[in-house]
Amino acid sequence: MEHLKDALLEQFGLVFEDSSLLETAFTHTSYANEHRLLKISHNERLEFLGDAVLQLIISEYLYKKYPKRPEGDLSKLRSMIVREESLAGFARDCQFDHFIKLGRGEEKSGGRNRDTILGDLFEAFLGALLLDKDVETVKDFIYQVMIPKVEAGDFEQVTDYKTKLQELLQVNGDVEIVYQVTDETGPAHAKNFAVAVLINGQKAGQGQGRSKKLAEQEAAKDAFEKESH
Amino acid sequence: MEHLKDALLEQFGLVFEDSSLLETAFTHTSYANEHRLLKISHNERLEFLGDAVLQLIISEYLYKKYPKRPEGDLSKLRSMIVREESLAGFARDCQFDHFIKLGRGEEKSGGRNRDTILGDLFEAFLGALLLDKDVETVKDFIYQVMIPKVEAGDFEQVTDYKTKLQELLQVNGDVEIVYQVTDETGPAHAKNFAVAVLINGQKAGQGQGRSKKLAEQEAAKDAFEKESH
Repeated sequence: MEHLKDALLEQFGLVFEDSSLLETAFTHTSYANEHRLLKISHNERLEFLGDAVLQLIISEYLYKKYPKRPEGDLSKLRSMIVREESLAGFARDCQFDHFIKLGRGEEKSGGRNRDTILGDLFEAFLGALLLDKDVETVKDFIYQVMIPKVEAGDFEQVTDYKTKLQELLQVNGDVEIVYQVTDETGPAHAKNFAVAVLINGQKAGQGQGRSKKLAEQEAAKDAFEKESH
Repeated sequence: MEHLKDALLEQFGLVFEDSSLLETAFTHTSYANEHRLLKISHNERLEFLGDAVLQLIISEYLYKKYPKRPEGDLSKLRSMIVREESLAGFARDCQFDHFIKLGRGEEKSGGRNRDTILGDLFEAFLGALLLDKDVETVKDFIYQVMIPKVEAGDFEQVTDYKTKLQELLQVNGDVEIVYQVTDETGPAHAKNFAVAVLINGQKAGQGQGRSKKLAEQEAAKDAFEKESH
């Protein structure tokens, strides 16, 4: 615990007024369950709060950063940034994984490196910071730890061809883009969808995939490549 | 627009620095689409932001109000409070429905009284308020408009028997409660689920319903009634 406090002060200039919040944030349910008689609090409630403050700060960041993007795009970007694996990565960047208290079983089975546990830990830390300080302090922390990576484009590797197609076509004014499932084959566990994309009623591309979403992306990619040449 | 400003000042003591934010918050997509050449902004992006600030403020409220409730309970309570119908109700309480700009088709078909439109409007207003002011101002507004109704228990009518069962049983220390689907019949549009609830491995109740969730609630109710007598 003292090492954690030193690390927070050194890396981020943060000092907690209420150490018990920090203690709770770094206590996994498995540890609390193992020491049930001590009635130790675990971090699930703080995670609930941290998730909400994180969503707000990222939402506001995206809203201001992309003044022209529709709400659906902002939602997608946000979910890419706040997804479990990326939050686990930020927890590791901050070396939070060194400090979390786990039950013995969880420790043995590699919980200290598990994305779910580290992602939740990161959110719980944000929740504790919110309660100990205020939204502005959480925002400063997120802008220090997360936003530089977001700006570096770490979260945009996956090409969203539906968005790219829409952006390409809207340059020429308003168009109607419709995705139609044209075929659906295979049993429930191994479905295959065929999708056509219509631009102003005219078929402009087609694609296939294991889900409707994937097939739509393929159809959009097909249309995008045709339209952009 | 002037009437809206007067109403906000009179009811809530609010004055917007940037009137265009208010204008955008009260413009439905249907209106913007009808006046496309004027390039009017609609309220979807503000709704995205308002939803996030609302979630945070309600989360923090619930966290502090219920210091013993587990995260799952807080999530459920939050979703009851911020669901569309309740937000639409708050929009009506504030008379926001008088001021929203709708397209003609939407107006004709009763959009001015539609929960989706009014719920989104309420969130968009919160987003505009956040941008024009700060989180604290949004919090004050929510504590003035929403929290009194929350405190009055307006959002707890629906009895959650799964939670009640858990609370009942945990008084005697830790128990394992498991819900098992025991049967699933009927076509996709008219399914019927049968669910059994096991307490520490012993069947303690059963229920049926159109969805797994409803069947689980019935099973929990069955077990709750047996266990509490």
